[in-house]
Amino acid sequence: MTDNKDKATIYAVAKNADVSVATVSRVFNHTGLVKEDTVRRVVDAAKALNYKIDIVDKLPSQTKKRSPREHELLILNVPSLNNPFYNEIIKGAKSAAELHQYDMLINQGHIRENNITGYIKMLNRVNAKGIIMLNHLSSLVLKTLADAIPTVQCCEYEEDADISSVSIDDLAAAKMVMEHLLSAGRKKIAFINGPPEYKYARHRSQGYYESMENAGIRVNPNWVLQLSDISADMAFSAVAQMLSQPEIPDAFFTVSDVFAAAVVRAARYNQYRVPEDIIVIGFDNVDISTVTTPSLTTVNQPKFQLGFIACEMLMEKLANPQAQAQHMLLHSELIVRESTLY
Amino acid sequence: MTDNKDKATIYAVAKNADVSVATVSRVFNHTGLVKEDTVRRVVDAAKALNYKIDIVDKLPSQTKKRSPREHELLILNVPSLNNPFYNEIIKGAKSAAELHQYDMLINQGHIRENNITGYIKMLNRVNAKGIIMLNHLSSLVLKTLADAIPTVQCCEYEEDADISSVSIDDLAAAKMVMEHLLSAGRKKIAFINGPPEYKYARHRSQGYYESMENAGIRVNPNWVLQLSDISADMAFSAVAQMLSQPEIPDAFFTVSDVFAAAVVRAARYNQYRVPEDIIVIGFDNVDISTVTTPSLTTVNQPKFQLGFIACEMLMEKLANPQAQAQHMLLHSELIVRESTLY
Repeated sequence: MTDNKDKATIYAVAKNADVSVATVSRVFNHTGLVKEDTVRRVVDAAKALNYKIDIVDKLPSQTKKRSPREHELLILNVPSLNNPFYNEIIKGAKSAAELHQYDMLINQGHIRENNITGYIKMLNRVNAKGIIMLNHLSSLVLKTLADAIPTVQCCEYEEDADISSVSIDDLAAAKMVMEHLLSAGRKKIAFINGPPEYKYARHRSQGYYESMENAGIRVNPNWVLQLSDISADMAFSAVAQMLSQPEIPDAFFTVSDVFAAAVVRAARYNQYRVPEDIIVIGFDNVDISTVTTPSLTTVNQPKFQLGFIACEMLMEKLANPQAQAQHMLLHSELIVRESTLY
Repeated sequence: MTDNKDKATIYAVAKNADVSVATVSRVFNHTGLVKEDTVRRVVDAAKALNYKIDIVDKLPSQTKKRSPREHELLILNVPSLNNPFYNEIIKGAKSAAELHQYDMLINQGHIRENNITGYIKMLNRVNAKGIIMLNHLSSLVLKTLADAIPTVQCCEYEEDADISSVSIDDLAAAKMVMEHLLSAGRKKIAFINGPPEYKYARHRSQGYYESMENAGIRVNPNWVLQLSDISADMAFSAVAQMLSQPEIPDAFFTVSDVFAAAVVRAARYNQYRVPEDIIVIGFDNVDISTVTTPSLTTVNQPKFQLGFIACEMLMEKLANPQAQAQHMLLHSELIVRESTLY
């Protein structure tokens, strides 16, 4: 499959990154879970050595010669740049694109039935070869897009679509959060969620309800909110209102650090203490989770790796358009900080 | 200059935005300063009415017919997406591009002498017609770029270059910050700056030193830091070290809310109180300025407007390539929050 020169290069990357060749292979073929900082070390080493990933190496059914796709264009699409969650994903995707000698530009915007045609025209005008899609799309829009151009879904994905995707296991993550809150002895647990059209919102909601049911605790419907946007002000207003009632929650599971920071602010506004009166967990481990007082316990998603793997999946789709779609769910981890340490 | 149909449209935008026609004109021709929320109202109204700005209207020397440039591509280049400061600027630029029926994609990356040639090739491959550049570039790189493609500088700019730019008056903003700290009776004022190759860092530094000199206060060189990146961790380490000394500052002027949040954290780490022992001012008015405890006094830059005007300047450059470069400095404002309220 590979000649000695290629082998030497893979060994050099492994040596430079201080990992095994098997680990380098796992990173570039994403055939197994690798820790985020290891992925970064391997990517940095590959970059430093000017190592090019030859994706055709992985596909025995094709000729070995790499097609002259260097410097072709990929587009990564984000719904918004306000959510700091996306930045690290973009870095990961860009790192993979660079290793394959592709250009990557970012489009920021919503894609709906009323603008999908114009969007595809734009992709054709700039001669884009593939799309990494972070937006939530309707089934029809997603199908229209994927029929027009090779597409990979990142974070948000349609569960039944025959379009590759990489995301986290939101149900497992939500259960891990609930386990932490319940093991702290809290029972009056509020849940601040995003809009239900998002896959993450549905799966985390399922995790919340199943955990409450398994613990034998009745959910107070007044303590479950679905906000229409990841907006700090909107969350503050809603939670401040909730905390002005006679009976209040003693714990909050929120689906974003932005929401968790708003809960901290709303608690202070209503003269409750975090974590003494109310414990709070965020999601995403973005910068604000360390600047609040108290700092936020949160769920760290492998953001860099999500972007990196999404781009690798797109490379494979480009090399082998007929291959079956792949679906990958990555693990996330709980980072315990002051907001639940009581 | 315009026919009745166009006039009617401008009037409709004015009516819909609840402003005068003169204000709409000022927004689209940026011939005067308009408040940020007014700019937004006008832009939203123009979008809602599907109003197209016909830039050729503004240029009596040219024929009135609009050239068929619709749906051509602009690139906005940012050095990094980690700094939340850029998000609102991108929104402003994108709004202007949409009004002119241009596409806008974002490139994230540094542009230096070793990659400018590849960058220009990429711009040619995607058929980009113009660049909004938010990066700091060396003189040589900037000249090479602007010779290859119409370029407008936003935020960072080369003062002597014949290339249009829009930014804020950093010297005036720094003096406004220092006036606020000095009028609070503080004299031991530290200054946490970014790297001196940036125009903003040089001008804010000048404002700091001139204000100290005018107040007859000697600068303690140990209290002036130039950090190489807008990094919360780097700022925390440096400031925590500064606050572990026997003599400490009683006020901090920082050039980013990220730094100011790190000062708040470092103060708490060293058991000093903000604002009682130490008052702190940030810069940019990004989201974290409201999630710290105490919330941060900061300088609000007209971010949306910076992006919007940069794109308008690029439109003019495309319509009239021989026109003289324009340089515009916008005002910024001090937003007083808890970190200086003592």
